[in-house]
Amino acid sequence: MDGSGETKAKAPQDRLADWLAEDMAAVNALIRDRMASKHAPRIPEVTAHLVEAGGKRLRPMLTLAAARMLGYQGTDHQKLAATVEFIHTATLLHDDVVDESERRRGRPTANLLWDNKSSVLVGDYLFSRSFQLMVETGSLRVLDILANASATIAEGEVLQLTAAQDLATDEAIYLQVIRGKTAALFSAATEVGGVIAGAPDATVRALYDYGDALGIAFQIVDDILDYGGSDAVIGKNTGDDFRERKLTLPVIKAVARASAEERAFWVRVIEKGDQRDGDLAQAMAILSRHDAISQARDEALAWTARARQALDNLPVHPLREMLLELAEYVVARVS
Amino acid sequence: MDGSGETKAKAPQDRLADWLAEDMAAVNALIRDRMASKHAPRIPEVTAHLVEAGGKRLRPMLTLAAARMLGYQGTDHQKLAATVEFIHTATLLHDDVVDESERRRGRPTANLLWDNKSSVLVGDYLFSRSFQLMVETGSLRVLDILANASATIAEGEVLQLTAAQDLATDEAIYLQVIRGKTAALFSAATEVGGVIAGAPDATVRALYDYGDALGIAFQIVDDILDYGGSDAVIGKNTGDDFRERKLTLPVIKAVARASAEERAFWVRVIEKGDQRDGDLAQAMAILSRHDAISQARDEALAWTARARQALDNLPVHPLREMLLELAEYVVARVS
Repeated sequence: MDGSGETKAKAPQDRLADWLAEDMAAVNALIRDRMASKHAPRIPEVTAHLVEAGGKRLRPMLTLAAARMLGYQGTDHQKLAATVEFIHTATLLHDDVVDESERRRGRPTANLLWDNKSSVLVGDYLFSRSFQLMVETGSLRVLDILANASATIAEGEVLQLTAAQDLATDEAIYLQVIRGKTAALFSAATEVGGVIAGAPDATVRALYDYGDALGIAFQIVDDILDYGGSDAVIGKNTGDDFRERKLTLPVIKAVARASAEERAFWVRVIEKGDQRDGDLAQAMAILSRHDAISQARDEALAWTARARQALDNLPVHPLREMLLELAEYVVARVS
Repeated sequence: MDGSGETKAKAPQDRLADWLAEDMAAVNALIRDRMASKHAPRIPEVTAHLVEAGGKRLRPMLTLAAARMLGYQGTDHQKLAATVEFIHTATLLHDDVVDESERRRGRPTANLLWDNKSSVLVGDYLFSRSFQLMVETGSLRVLDILANASATIAEGEVLQLTAAQDLATDEAIYLQVIRGKTAALFSAATEVGGVIAGAPDATVRALYDYGDALGIAFQIVDDILDYGGSDAVIGKNTGDDFRERKLTLPVIKAVARASAEERAFWVRVIEKGDQRDGDLAQAMAILSRHDAISQARDEALAWTARARQALDNLPVHPLREMLLELAEYVVARVS
């Protein structure tokens, strides 16, 4: 349970995983137990495919870290960590239907292996299971936080449907979308960790702010990497957002400075969805011309700074250091 | 607020609606208010299409009736009634995606008017909104009931995916499926009405039993009507389950008594989905040959009797009479 010494060279999320190993083992057991279904064998099949594909379990670790950092000694934080992972998995299943995705984490998606029906209904099942888990903690404040986060997530996803392919989408709308699709669950994850530990309001607020800023930085970086990151090299994970015509921060920055000719290009490829060979390279050249990637990275760095400020309001603790390093690490992927 | 006198000839759900008119007006206002979204205009568009299509609002009336019958004087039962209607609407949106339906209540479905994405995500939004509403009541017991009902609903839907086209599906599995897809929300609706009214356990249990039996009778009748009811006439609402290859009670009864030739027919049309002109008429002829429709109707009548028995455990009240007549009316559609 000590993250110092020879593990120092590890990535912060791996050090968190080491420190929280006992808790995470309990969370994983809870996830396996609750994703089962006596009546519908399709449910564990689909869920196992996704849950055991080896995601980083970042969100449940945030809940565990927040609670442990504040000296929590019970086990309800494990239920909440499993809750958060179930909500995340449910949204992934529904996202893959919405995006018509064929691969996630290098494996075929559930909607491809089974069908859209299974992804929709098993997502609903996991969401219900998460709901049962949080009710078991008996904390109305936790239920309130997670109900609000769920609504923000769904609202952000619907907003993205209409805003993503519209060149009028500005940075304020983009921020709303990514708060919904990513940051709302990060901030709920850290906040409920504080609430279950019985922390005072200022501490709970700082945990919310940290999760919110971390989630926003994380999603901006993800959106930058989709255009090849700082290297701007086309790789196998490059161009998904472009092909799905999602207006993300780098493109919003480039559209704001576009020449008439560039604007016509964005209208064609994003709004009209008329994409041809070479268009992705052309998009990346335009982003580079307007320094859009490094501007987006500056925004991510600003959110990392806010995450750091939020942590300053929390007690000194090895887990606090790991959370700080995590926020820096997230953005280092594009530096 | 009096359901007697000149309204006597009305159908029971209309008499319930008259009696509960003030409550229902408040519930409808709550529904309109909570289906709004500041950020995502697509949400009220899709929801209004469905919510205002004029469903019977049967489920919220069950919650209101249960609470009022027990003398409840607050307003939390209205929140729970809106909760139940939101959960119902969310499941309809997802069902239409799963069933690839094109029409509901005589109008094009949301997945056809917008797209599957909108139906999935707006369904998620409504489910989250329902969750917020129930948290506002501050009753952990209510939250527990609705969390369990949500899981039962999703599990039943997934079970139907795999069981529906499998001739090995028997009456026990069918019962599980329809408890999930229909009865779980009926029984939760009546049960939470009793809980919010502070009723003793035996009363709450009787309300659960009534809702469960009513929901099962309701779904069996729906499945009978899909084969033309007692008249066995092909109408515009006939044959949807057959075309979707759903193994419902009449077919399960006929399969159990099938000759080798009939069994080959069911294997072809249900399991293999190889359907040709005249097959629906052929299916109805086989159902008729084995008296499958009237046997299924007898099951529905047995559930109505259980609904009546459950009501015997509740205090005498005009609303109790209406609930009794409702249970009889549901089955009268196929008598």
